[in-house]
Amino acid sequence: MQTVLSATDIAFFENLLGNRQQVGDAIDSHYASDHTEDFVFYPAIVVKPETTEEVAAIMKYCYENNLIVTPSGARTGLSGGALADQGGVLLSLERMNKIINIDEKNHQVITEPGVVTEALQMAVKEKGLFYPPDPASKGSCFIGGNIAENSGGPKAVKYGVTKDWVLNLEVVLPNGEIMWTGANVIKNATGYNLTQLIIGSEGTLAVVTKIVLRLIPHPTHTLLLLVPFRKGEEACEAVGKIFMEGIIPSGLEYMDRDAIVFTLPFVDDAPDILKDDHDAHLLIELDGFNLDVMMQDCEKIMAIVEQFDIDEILFAETEAQKESLWRLRRKIGESVKSHSIYKEEDTVVPRYELPALLRKVKALAAEYGFTPVCYGHAGDGNLHVNIIKGNLSDQAWNEELPKAIRELFTEVVRLGGTISGEHGIGLVQKEYMDIAFGAAQLDLMRAIKNTFDPKGLLNPGKVLPSKGN
Amino acid sequence: MQTVLSATDIAFFENLLGNRQQVGDAIDSHYASDHTEDFVFYPAIVVKPETTEEVAAIMKYCYENNLIVTPSGARTGLSGGALADQGGVLLSLERMNKIINIDEKNHQVITEPGVVTEALQMAVKEKGLFYPPDPASKGSCFIGGNIAENSGGPKAVKYGVTKDWVLNLEVVLPNGEIMWTGANVIKNATGYNLTQLIIGSEGTLAVVTKIVLRLIPHPTHTLLLLVPFRKGEEACEAVGKIFMEGIIPSGLEYMDRDAIVFTLPFVDDAPDILKDDHDAHLLIELDGFNLDVMMQDCEKIMAIVEQFDIDEILFAETEAQKESLWRLRRKIGESVKSHSIYKEEDTVVPRYELPALLRKVKALAAEYGFTPVCYGHAGDGNLHVNIIKGNLSDQAWNEELPKAIRELFTEVVRLGGTISGEHGIGLVQKEYMDIAFGAAQLDLMRAIKNTFDPKGLLNPGKVLPSKGN
Repeated sequence: MQTVLSATDIAFFENLLGNRQQVGDAIDSHYASDHTEDFVFYPAIVVKPETTEEVAAIMKYCYENNLIVTPSGARTGLSGGALADQGGVLLSLERMNKIINIDEKNHQVITEPGVVTEALQMAVKEKGLFYPPDPASKGSCFIGGNIAENSGGPKAVKYGVTKDWVLNLEVVLPNGEIMWTGANVIKNATGYNLTQLIIGSEGTLAVVTKIVLRLIPHPTHTLLLLVPFRKGEEACEAVGKIFMEGIIPSGLEYMDRDAIVFTLPFVDDAPDILKDDHDAHLLIELDGFNLDVMMQDCEKIMAIVEQFDIDEILFAETEAQKESLWRLRRKIGESVKSHSIYKEEDTVVPRYELPALLRKVKALAAEYGFTPVCYGHAGDGNLHVNIIKGNLSDQAWNEELPKAIRELFTEVVRLGGTISGEHGIGLVQKEYMDIAFGAAQLDLMRAIKNTFDPKGLLNPGKVLPSKGN
Repeated sequence: MQTVLSATDIAFFENLLGNRQQVGDAIDSHYASDHTEDFVFYPAIVVKPETTEEVAAIMKYCYENNLIVTPSGARTGLSGGALADQGGVLLSLERMNKIINIDEKNHQVITEPGVVTEALQMAVKEKGLFYPPDPASKGSCFIGGNIAENSGGPKAVKYGVTKDWVLNLEVVLPNGEIMWTGANVIKNATGYNLTQLIIGSEGTLAVVTKIVLRLIPHPTHTLLLLVPFRKGEEACEAVGKIFMEGIIPSGLEYMDRDAIVFTLPFVDDAPDILKDDHDAHLLIELDGFNLDVMMQDCEKIMAIVEQFDIDEILFAETEAQKESLWRLRRKIGESVKSHSIYKEEDTVVPRYELPALLRKVKALAAEYGFTPVCYGHAGDGNLHVNIIKGNLSDQAWNEELPKAIRELFTEVVRLGGTISGEHGIGLVQKEYMDIAFGAAQLDLMRAIKNTFDPKGLLNPGKVLPSKGN
């Protein structure tokens, strides 16, 4: 396995790509990191193909010459999956950024992987169509990265995650072969589901070069409520109750007090929403085609949350107000990060177990002396737990904290959940995989990896812990 | 690979299961067939475990003694996936028929595989919850079989197929190991998606012993329209137009004239719906929570279909009338079969390509001299093409017809579709798999099969064509 390039290797890439590559000291620093903690890893070379055929040529060359390859999108990932931590070739899909066809007749879109998710959403919206998954980084992440990580976002509670919208993928295998994984149809009972196997595999099985997504008619209206709770746990309880009424919001977000405190300074037009006795907020969105029906659901929701100890509900009156509240929510992750060294855990449980999960987080924080900032997609039980280093000693941070995380993940799995809802395992969570899976599952996953990538050259060391761990 | 049992083998199963097994001549004839053509294959033994541990003990014994095992549900399959065509052990899941827990708080259900799909739907409906996938055989098929085949049904157009509702599976591997594939959550970015790999694998990778499904609030109203078209192709065109208006019906079924002619005698209270000039019908269902909104959508649909050459629209007034129309639709497959030797092709294309598909079917029928009966789920492009042997010679049936099917499937794939939408590949379609997939995909699927089942004992000879085919 080669992580350093020879002159012959460099000549090959120069010949294939012209100036669409960067070697050694010429590599821009942004290729060395993503949004995971404070990691910096430089590859030996960055290559920027523009076609599937170029990707295939790169993969074939690397396969024949035992060069390791790390596929990379916009590097907004939160688990380090796109980091070239072992050097080698960083395969950036940034130039494969065309929307190939919006098929209005069949409600489908074919796109290259390097299209920014929000740009894709806007393009299909112009045709009255809707691609719902919208991770917080939608303004900068690539749709290809969303496939790699099986990204979620706030709308998952109503519309599912990335995997629920992918019909078919063109991929390049580690040996350079090009293939489609499925067909452009909703119903498919033809062989094993290779499409779903690639989604969420974090660039360890194949490189995605084309994507066929299904679309639906775009809702014409949204409503947005912000509900301040005096007790965070009651906010979590309210979430379960809303669903029990038969209402499925298109977003149901939880933000604890600290999350908002950290974030307000980072939002220009931040609304004045935080009072001294607020412990947590729920941001609740409804979408649909009929405003009257939505208003009825809205009233039901208000009746539910008013059973708890809440302050006055803020009803967003204008599109600008809605966008401002959503911007606040989306900025949390970034804002918390800018404050201190941190770790972000992406816990997910069946949604009615959220109060139990929140209790466990608080108990562990008290026991281990860390500050947790909790926020996330309460509607689908996906709670992000940011752990702030703050004044913790390096010894506590490096040696004690992993024990706390292990305890947290063990509880999450006990509650029926798992250790990552939408951020993936990548580099930083793989040593906890034994909590979610036993030897049987991990051995199957390793064998699947080996089937696709017998030489172990594609994004090595990600997702799966070493055997014996 | 053993297909015949020794006295020691029989003693093992008797000891483990008591009288929950049948050997040799004692085997009831229904275990020898499913709903695929006129196949009859007897296993050497039928075993009927009641617990996961018994399944594991059976699998372990078979693994150690090289006995082949065919998992079997209600045997309503249409591609022969549950047929013991090589003898050996037929593992019937019929005794694992308990709904373990309906989790109203999290909108989930945990069930054993041997529960009849409709019974499961009724049980969750009592709690106000909805499990949408409803294959035509819902009154007799098992939910476990639905997982195996990734079953669809009419509601797939709005609600997706079985795979879209499965959160987690307990499975027994060919070597007898028991494992869960995922977690009980909507969002999951933790390792490769083993759950989705098992779904649709037709019992060739593992035996499913427990199933966790997600549920949603049950719609409170449905509306049902029957629209008679004087030209079948126009019915297909209307399907595309309805979606272009932004309406997503909960069912959009196509039935050509012959399908109805064959079926009317099999339905007791058959409505009087067929006039001489009717060429095809669309059955259109809307569901929802607000009748006013649904009536508005209904009016939009009527305005669309009235642009075509149609006869009077039948609006189902009562629940009994709705059920009678749906029963007619569901009975088609069975009725056509009882008429003649037949083959059923389960073509699927992007829905706007339906008219092109229908044209191809008619052209092939004219060229090869067969009678096609077409019906199915037009809303998602899934057209069942039943080919009636009728007066065709055995020579034409055995030697010419496969060429016609190959031409049909080639066109289906060219249109962006695939060779099975919901019936699976099983025994009868595997020799056409090379049309849907090239060597790269088939080799990956074979390697995945080998990973789960290195001895090739679990449902051998299904889904994947032999190497070289």
